[in-house]
Amino acid sequence: MLPMARKQGSHSDITGPKVHQAALRLIAQHGYAAVSMRQIAAEVGVQVGALYNYTSDKQSLLYDLMHSHMRDLLDAVAATDMSGDPVTRLRAFTCFHIRYHLPRSDNVFVSYMELRNLSPDNFTAVEAMRRDYENILEQILRDGEAEGVFSVADTRVSTMALIAMLTGLSHWYREDGRLGMDKIEAIYWDLVRKAVMA
Amino acid sequence: MLPMARKQGSHSDITGPKVHQAALRLIAQHGYAAVSMRQIAAEVGVQVGALYNYTSDKQSLLYDLMHSHMRDLLDAVAATDMSGDPVTRLRAFTCFHIRYHLPRSDNVFVSYMELRNLSPDNFTAVEAMRRDYENILEQILRDGEAEGVFSVADTRVSTMALIAMLTGLSHWYREDGRLGMDKIEAIYWDLVRKAVMA
Repeated sequence: MLPMARKQGSHSDITGPKVHQAALRLIAQHGYAAVSMRQIAAEVGVQVGALYNYTSDKQSLLYDLMHSHMRDLLDAVAATDMSGDPVTRLRAFTCFHIRYHLPRSDNVFVSYMELRNLSPDNFTAVEAMRRDYENILEQILRDGEAEGVFSVADTRVSTMALIAMLTGLSHWYREDGRLGMDKIEAIYWDLVRKAVMA
Repeated sequence: MLPMARKQGSHSDITGPKVHQAALRLIAQHGYAAVSMRQIAAEVGVQVGALYNYTSDKQSLLYDLMHSHMRDLLDAVAATDMSGDPVTRLRAFTCFHIRYHLPRSDNVFVSYMELRNLSPDNFTAVEAMRRDYENILEQILRDGEAEGVFSVADTRVSTMALIAMLTGLSHWYREDGRLGMDKIEAIYWDLVRKAVMA
């Protein structure tokens, strides 16, 4: 039984999370075009043939990475309390976006950088999910406009502008920096709130 | 004389701008690690040996690209009228940043994406230039705070947040989209102004 158990154990080593982690790390470091399936297999610690049992090709792997990042993001935002008046919802969205993305800077980097390397169909699918996420913020801005508490010249452009501002934090924030999460969150919330208030 | 003239002509083909353009296009498309000097030479239309007459290696070429982008940016901002009160200066900076970066989306993309591929010394040099540019905006925010017209919780973080918001435009704006430059500029200026006003 023991060899059998080891065999099963070593086969089940090739789990989605392990492959995703290795691929994400390598692609974030070198870029999609420079990373081979062989390198990813070596990072996971398996033969390249074993990797092909898990994913059909590198494009599918990239799509899996970007699709699962968006799916997890949409699941997480759906599980977050976004009830209340538009100001409360805007604050909840701002804090959610910051706290969700900050520990996932490799995902943020790859999701933006490697859009150009998705096949047209895969690009369309990932873009649609990004749009679903953006629409959550845009709906908050629209509702705030309708109630007269927000005043923005264009809810769509303002949505893109605010998301870029919040996501940009991932590019420069360091946990050992001079400012803690609470302080950062307060500074960004102040900017977001003032930018859209009537 | 004619063969001589052709020879000179073909030699002078390997100009800085041509090499930069080719390298920028290829690196923006495939990423630094995936692009070879051979591919860059082919894109310029010369033998790879001729390319080495111009630049010593791929790292130097990447540094040249990112350094010259920052130098041109600093030259352009220095040549822009940024006089007046803090609100006028903030508006001038906002409009300058948008109009300078929009037609240079490959540069914006490569400058952000390939920071990780700069050697430590080259990274330090490019980072210092980025900091010089950011300091222009931060000084405007500081002066506005001192005069009581702006109120931001942290001028440094607000600087990074506003620059990320403005640069983000390069990621999604399309010239054939529903909004022209003037409208886009007005929307962003509205967000920036309100975000920092006292």
